[in-house]
Amino acid sequence: MNFHQPHLMSAALLGGAVFLSSAVLADDGLGDYRSRFDPLPHLPPIPADNSLTDEKVELGKMLFFEPRISTSGVISCATCHNPALGWSDRIPRATGHQGQIGERNTPTVLNAGFLDAQFWDGREPDLEGQALGPIEAAVEMAMDLESALSRLDGFDIYQEHFAGAFPEDDDPVNEDNLAQALASFQRTLNTPNSPFDRYLRGDMNALDTQEKDGMVAFVDNGCIACHRGPNLSDSQFHAIQVPGSTDVGRYDVTGEEADKYRFRTPTLRNVAVTYPYMNNGATETLEEAVAIMGQEMLGQEFEEEKIDNIVAFLHTLTGEMPDFEVPALP
Amino acid sequence: MNFHQPHLMSAALLGGAVFLSSAVLADDGLGDYRSRFDPLPHLPPIPADNSLTDEKVELGKMLFFEPRISTSGVISCATCHNPALGWSDRIPRATGHQGQIGERNTPTVLNAGFLDAQFWDGREPDLEGQALGPIEAAVEMAMDLESALSRLDGFDIYQEHFAGAFPEDDDPVNEDNLAQALASFQRTLNTPNSPFDRYLRGDMNALDTQEKDGMVAFVDNGCIACHRGPNLSDSQFHAIQVPGSTDVGRYDVTGEEADKYRFRTPTLRNVAVTYPYMNNGATETLEEAVAIMGQEMLGQEFEEEKIDNIVAFLHTLTGEMPDFEVPALP
Repeated sequence: MNFHQPHLMSAALLGGAVFLSSAVLADDGLGDYRSRFDPLPHLPPIPADNSLTDEKVELGKMLFFEPRISTSGVISCATCHNPALGWSDRIPRATGHQGQIGERNTPTVLNAGFLDAQFWDGREPDLEGQALGPIEAAVEMAMDLESALSRLDGFDIYQEHFAGAFPEDDDPVNEDNLAQALASFQRTLNTPNSPFDRYLRGDMNALDTQEKDGMVAFVDNGCIACHRGPNLSDSQFHAIQVPGSTDVGRYDVTGEEADKYRFRTPTLRNVAVTYPYMNNGATETLEEAVAIMGQEMLGQEFEEEKIDNIVAFLHTLTGEMPDFEVPALP
Repeated sequence: MNFHQPHLMSAALLGGAVFLSSAVLADDGLGDYRSRFDPLPHLPPIPADNSLTDEKVELGKMLFFEPRISTSGVISCATCHNPALGWSDRIPRATGHQGQIGERNTPTVLNAGFLDAQFWDGREPDLEGQALGPIEAAVEMAMDLESALSRLDGFDIYQEHFAGAFPEDDDPVNEDNLAQALASFQRTLNTPNSPFDRYLRGDMNALDTQEKDGMVAFVDNGCIACHRGPNLSDSQFHAIQVPGSTDVGRYDVTGEEADKYRFRTPTLRNVAVTYPYMNNGATETLEEAVAIMGQEMLGQEFEEEKIDNIVAFLHTLTGEMPDFEVPALP
C-alpha cells in the first residue's frame, strides 16, 4: 500500500477518473488467475489467402449493410447482426425472410474472427466460409448467390469497389470475393479494451472486488475449461441440452452419434449485451445462463452469491464497440 | 467576365477544387429564376407544442432504430427508412411484417419536417401524427401501441430517457411522447448545402451550364407549380395515375370523388438517391420519371435534351446527409 507514493498518485491523476477508494493497487495477488486469460488483440489472425486491405473492408461494409442481396430487398446481414444491438438481434431465434423464425439464436459477429469454427454447429471453419450461408439460407435472406451477384453487378459503384478490392481479377464480382470482402469487414469488428482487458494489462483497479471474485470463481469452477483464449471460446464442440431445446447441433453436420447435441462454445466477450442466451435463445438473463451452465456443464448448483459474482465478472467483458459509419449505398 | 480580377481569383483558389473552365461568374443572369426557389434551412419549423430538445432527439433516434417495437422484433423505422439508402429502401413498394408488400413506395424521411402533409395521401398533417402509423400498420411493423410501450417500459434505459425528455410527465412512457420523440429526431434529418443551395446562396459555379438549363426548364415548363418551396413540394394533392397504379390515393382519406387518384406532391430533395419513383415505385430512373411527369401533369412530351437537363438539375438537389451514429440500444 503506497497511497502517497508519488508516481502512483500521478499515474492515477493522469489516468482521469480513477477512484481512490482505499488504495492504488500495485498488485492484487491474483496474478495466477490473470495468467490463465489472454487480453483481446485489436485484430484476429488474418488468413494468408485473404489479406486485410482497406478496399476489402470498405466493400465488405457496404455488402454487410446491403439489403438488396436478399430476395425481399429489405434484409441485410445488419438486420440480424444489428450494430445497435451488440451486432446481434436480441430476440430468441433469428427471424428472416417473410418472418420465418429459424432454429437458433443469432450469434454476434463481434470478435468472430477469433473463432476457429463458425455457426453454432461449426459447419464452416472461417468467416469466408460463413459469409455466404445466411444470404442463401431460405429462412434468412433467401437469395441465390447468382442473383445476388447479378444485382450487385448492376451498380457501377459495386463494380468499381470490387475491382479496387480485387485488382488482379478479370471478373471481380464473384462469390469468392463477396465472401472475402464480408469476412474482411467482419475481422474489423472487434471490441478491445474492456475493463477485463485493462485489468489483464495491469490496471488493477479496472475490476472491483466482486468482479475479481467472479473471475476467481470462473477459473476455480472450471468455466475456463471451454471459455478460454482471447475470445473466451475454445472453438470446440460440447454436448448440452438447454431448457426447451431439441436441436441436435453438430450431429447435423457430421452425422456422427457422438456429435448429437454438441454446439461450439460461444464467445463470452460482450455477453452482457448479446442476450438472450443459448442455442435456442430461451434464456433471458445472465443469472439464469450461469446457473444453467453450472448444472448442465459442471454438474453444480451454484449458490446465488457465486452466480452474482460470475455475472459481475461477465459484465467486465464488454469492450469498446467498433467505430464505424453507416455506408452510403448506391 | 473578370477572369483576372484579383479578389475573385483568390476566392476561387481558397474555395478549393473550383474548376476554372472559362470564368468565375459574378452573376449568370439567371437571378429571376433563382428568385423562384428557396434554399433549404438547416431545420424545419418546430411546432410550439413539441420543442426540439437534445433529449427528445436522442430518445427519438433510439426509437427510430428500435426493432423491438415491431411484432417480429426485427423491423424498425430504419428498416424501410434506411440511412444507407437515402433514408428510404430503394425497392418499389414497402416490405414489412412477414414479408408483406404494401401498396406504396416508401417516402424518404429526409426533410420530411418541411412537409405540411405526411404520407402519400396526406392522412396526417405532421410528423407527430405520422410517427405511430407504421408501428401499427399490419403490413409494416404490425405492433399495437400498448405492447410497443410495454416493451419499452421494460428497459430501465428507456424509462430514464423518456423521463429525461419529458420531465413534466408522471408517466412519460406513453403514446404522445413516443410520437413526439420520433418526430423530433426526424426533424433533424435534413440535407442542407446541396449544390443547388450553394448556387441559390450565391456560388454561381455550384451548378454547371446543363444543370442551370435544367433549372430554367423546370421553371419554364411549370414543374415548379407543385414542386416549390424549400422542400420542393407544395404539400398539396394532385391527381395522377402513373403507369401500373390503380391506387385511389387521397380518396381513401376523404371519401370525396374529387380526391380520387390525388397524391401529395413528393419532395424532390435528394431525388437522385431516393429511387424508385411514384406512389407505386414502378419508375426506376429519373429520366422516365421526368418524362412521365411531363405527360401526366403538364400534357407535354419532353424532348430528350430537356429531360436530360432537368435530370441534371435534379441531381443538384442531393444535399449533405445527416451526420449521426447508430445508437447503442438496451
